[in-house]
Amino acid sequence: MAVSQEKREEIRQKALEYYEKAHIYLTEEEKKNLEIADMGLGRIEEFGIQIHIYINTKRYAAKEMVLLPGQICPEQCHPPFEGDVGKEETFRVRYGTLYVYTEGKRTPEAEIRARIPADKQDCFRVFHQLILKKGEQFTVKPNVTHWICGGEEGCVVSEFSTYNRDDLDIYTDPEINRMDGVTHKES
Amino acid sequence: MAVSQEKREEIRQKALEYYEKAHIYLTEEEKKNLEIADMGLGRIEEFGIQIHIYINTKRYAAKEMVLLPGQICPEQCHPPFEGDVGKEETFRVRYGTLYVYTEGKRTPEAEIRARIPADKQDCFRVFHQLILKKGEQFTVKPNVTHWICGGEEGCVVSEFSTYNRDDLDIYTDPEINRMDGVTHKES
Repeated sequence: MAVSQEKREEIRQKALEYYEKAHIYLTEEEKKNLEIADMGLGRIEEFGIQIHIYINTKRYAAKEMVLLPGQICPEQCHPPFEGDVGKEETFRVRYGTLYVYTEGKRTPEAEIRARIPADKQDCFRVFHQLILKKGEQFTVKPNVTHWICGGEEGCVVSEFSTYNRDDLDIYTDPEINRMDGVTHKES
Repeated sequence: MAVSQEKREEIRQKALEYYEKAHIYLTEEEKKNLEIADMGLGRIEEFGIQIHIYINTKRYAAKEMVLLPGQICPEQCHPPFEGDVGKEETFRVRYGTLYVYTEGKRTPEAEIRARIPADKQDCFRVFHQLILKKGEQFTVKPNVTHWICGGEEGCVVSEFSTYNRDDLDIYTDPEINRMDGVTHKES
């Protein structure tokens, strides 16, 4: 069940505060059109992400994303499609701290910063943790499973990447509908 | 003749002030490695650009660029190469004003903001002027001739694009050597 319009607006306002804290200037039109992705789970403070898309073409893309404190953008991978090897993306932290979880050596349980709600524990399989602070960046290669989470103070993260086909992303959680409530934008 | 090390350092410091004004955070290592491109002309306050490369792979690229007040990044185009249709790039202004000149209807002489030094007038052929302010952006399609110039207060501009092969760029000015003094970076 998708989040209510009221909740969506509340989250939008919160996200806009983060862009301000990070000194990322968006036009009024851009602020109005911010993508509030709740993945169709209706639990946006736990699972979701807020996104401004600067550009998304078949050749390249760039976004500015906000994760609220502890908010998780769920486990996913970007598979090959139509002759493309799949989306590759680089995260660059602008404000706050970003936790990235990806394939690789499992980080000891006690060191894992993200808090996964009890009923969704089964929907997360990769636990190689990276802690990225302002000015740090990391590239997720195509078709590599990963998920991200906002640090205690939330974060603003630039994403530079190849073409975004969010509708093709594969989520570990079968209840997710990535495009729920989202108008797919391409420019 | 390339600019001196002293001048290069002076320009680097000036560029770093612009990143600060735009609230673009770079690490100490990144600041040290800033690309100061004088195009081999040795007239960097007139012709040149300062660049931080976030990422540049065969699939996508992102940079943060500084143009000092009135500084011109000379007329160029990004031709097709090795089966690629050529670099496409999107400029997004973060601070100040950017003048973009590209193919299209010539802007009346009296309205042209950039001041081209007298001896280089012949090296500029396209005069369709766009004035981009903070939060505005423009995409230059592959193989389209263009040049850019910093406004009165200079500017900081993000560039999102396909793969950068700066060594293949075609400049109208035959005296230009784009890679002069530049260590080509790829990540």
